[in-house]
Amino acid sequence: MLTREGCLARRQRLWERVPESTEWVLVADPRHVQYLANCWVQPLSFSGGERCWLLLERGGRATIMGDNFALRSAVHEPVADREIVEPWYDHKHSVINRDHALLNALRKVAPELAGRPGLIEAEWLPVAAADILPLEGEAWSLDSGDHAGQNGSGALDLGTILRSLRRQKEQDELDLLRTCMRAGDAGQLRLREVLAAGLTEFDIYLEIQKAAVAAAGRPALVYGDFRASTPEQPKAGGLPTNYELKTGDLFVLDYSVLLDGYRSDFTNTLCIGAPTDEQQMLFDLCEAAMRAGEETLKAGTAASDVHAAVAAPFRDAGYGDAFPHHAGHGIGLAHPEPPILVPDSRDVLLAGDVVTLEPGAYVQGIGGMRIEHNYLITDSGYERLSNHVISLT
Amino acid sequence: MLTREGCLARRQRLWERVPESTEWVLVADPRHVQYLANCWVQPLSFSGGERCWLLLERGGRATIMGDNFALRSAVHEPVADREIVEPWYDHKHSVINRDHALLNALRKVAPELAGRPGLIEAEWLPVAAADILPLEGEAWSLDSGDHAGQNGSGALDLGTILRSLRRQKEQDELDLLRTCMRAGDAGQLRLREVLAAGLTEFDIYLEIQKAAVAAAGRPALVYGDFRASTPEQPKAGGLPTNYELKTGDLFVLDYSVLLDGYRSDFTNTLCIGAPTDEQQMLFDLCEAAMRAGEETLKAGTAASDVHAAVAAPFRDAGYGDAFPHHAGHGIGLAHPEPPILVPDSRDVLLAGDVVTLEPGAYVQGIGGMRIEHNYLITDSGYERLSNHVISLT
Repeated sequence: MLTREGCLARRQRLWERVPESTEWVLVADPRHVQYLANCWVQPLSFSGGERCWLLLERGGRATIMGDNFALRSAVHEPVADREIVEPWYDHKHSVINRDHALLNALRKVAPELAGRPGLIEAEWLPVAAADILPLEGEAWSLDSGDHAGQNGSGALDLGTILRSLRRQKEQDELDLLRTCMRAGDAGQLRLREVLAAGLTEFDIYLEIQKAAVAAAGRPALVYGDFRASTPEQPKAGGLPTNYELKTGDLFVLDYSVLLDGYRSDFTNTLCIGAPTDEQQMLFDLCEAAMRAGEETLKAGTAASDVHAAVAAPFRDAGYGDAFPHHAGHGIGLAHPEPPILVPDSRDVLLAGDVVTLEPGAYVQGIGGMRIEHNYLITDSGYERLSNHVISLT
Repeated sequence: MLTREGCLARRQRLWERVPESTEWVLVADPRHVQYLANCWVQPLSFSGGERCWLLLERGGRATIMGDNFALRSAVHEPVADREIVEPWYDHKHSVINRDHALLNALRKVAPELAGRPGLIEAEWLPVAAADILPLEGEAWSLDSGDHAGQNGSGALDLGTILRSLRRQKEQDELDLLRTCMRAGDAGQLRLREVLAAGLTEFDIYLEIQKAAVAAAGRPALVYGDFRASTPEQPKAGGLPTNYELKTGDLFVLDYSVLLDGYRSDFTNTLCIGAPTDEQQMLFDLCEAAMRAGEETLKAGTAASDVHAAVAAPFRDAGYGDAFPHHAGHGIGLAHPEPPILVPDSRDVLLAGDVVTLEPGAYVQGIGGMRIEHNYLITDSGYERLSNHVISLT
């Protein structure tokens, strides 16, 4: 879970990014309510999909708003000074539209904001909520370009500022990511134990999910690519099908374990039976590409340079076209997210970024494969966060 | 999955509820985008939590808007005449704020709406989206009372109208609910196979989840109460803990399997070892309460009368206080939802409602237990949708 210390540090960084005249911010993206207040409505509950909102005031006060059941469904105790809990359901009376209960919670707070300049998260706060607020003039402005935060006019886009802050993880976020990584490792290990011809992709998925959740020690979301690759159809992604594995297939396990909104995302490819020489050759290229990428990982490196390093071994071996996708990307409360490790990226690695490196090769007649690790970027290089075995057998 | 026929029928019912002058509606609650267009962003994907929006026009055209990855992550092919797919990520360039990609999709459609009266879903459409639209005058109005839809002033609340429409399920929704029910049955059966002293609640949960997802035949969300009840602590709910089961405990499995936004929700309680006479007596009361409730299930019955029927056996046996919660509630795209089967409910059962009946009893020194089935309400009575075995042993 996220800690009070971490939430306060993130809020401090946010206040440093908004004008001094801003007295309050109203945060509405569920990811950002979690980010700043450790308040994540459990998706594995009857409140899955419901929302809480967060009001932060300069000076420090944090107020969480929600209906009585949504707040009870938060995975952990929110880090807040005040909870505005609107009774929605009491086991005695009919219910109103549950969204209106959330709006009623906001109504209780709105008068406190009158006459005070503030900022709302306009990508997520609904029209009905803005109507309740005593907003004067522009309380938001969106920058539709790809540069975060403060646009030319000096107007502010709270959502984009928060997305840029998210890149640099605090210690509590790293601890949570490490828990996701350990669970992910367990699923990768389980694949080695169970993989066999005759099983379906879906059979394998069930085993991996159970192992990963067991290792997480509590309910978690598990998603990703659980797919066989064949020489005839080298590239396949997404959730498992009922395809039955056969000797000679490759199984690409590129998957994520998600806890409290944060996630791991790493990959290995295993061969059913002995790999062919060509399959092993491609896999060796993937490993060389990963090593080459790792050598570039360090705060200040251009994301495009990471991609170039990862792509080089494929190109040099005459397999440049076999590697068609990104070399990696940021992970955290979403996936993919900046920095994006692609040829025309304008991103630059920052200390505190958590990124993937994921070289892959897909060749008609041979098959498709991908490997992936997750890394914390530091000033001097990186710390690898994932610890699964990468090998074709 | 939802069908074209079902989506068109639901849209038709919606058009019958908005004024003839309304030429378009913009739907933003993810549940309602699914409801009307079979477009559910897979929560078990890297697009989990991302959104698509739906524009419906009188005359029939349906337009889905989303970023290229969110639309690719829809569980099924949306039922739409047009898809506005905004490129967000191309594996070559840095990315913008993903929410802005969705807004850019809306920008492409907005000019078509100029000068035409429409209605937006104000509880979910964000401020930044409304800013893009050529809205003239009030395009929404919320009724904060508990009566749905058209309020005294004649203004319209699209979200509340949709919630009221949701009560009466179409055939495709019932088919999807039946799939959830079958998966739920499998998890209940698995509990019988594995329950034993020495296991933790979490061990049990892992088995049930795997069995339910296996029976669903594709990835599904599983949530609910997976908890032991003891004579000392009869009432416990929520996700599993590491509590180790012991002989004499009761295990209350009240859980849901969620596919494409729709869900089952039913319960049984099993005793670890032989139940005591008092435990069996309470369980018999629960069964009597369920039978009494079933006798009232029929379109036109007041929800409060269903509660009264379920409560009577407990009261008559001198255990009125042992049954403290609702007798049941509606299920579908959310849970609980109207009709709410409680003492002061003003709801009335409708043909097409899918409801639970869930009598329970919690007595200090004896233990806690609950049983539950799901039912489709018809003009003449009900059809029971869940088929698990209800018994204490």
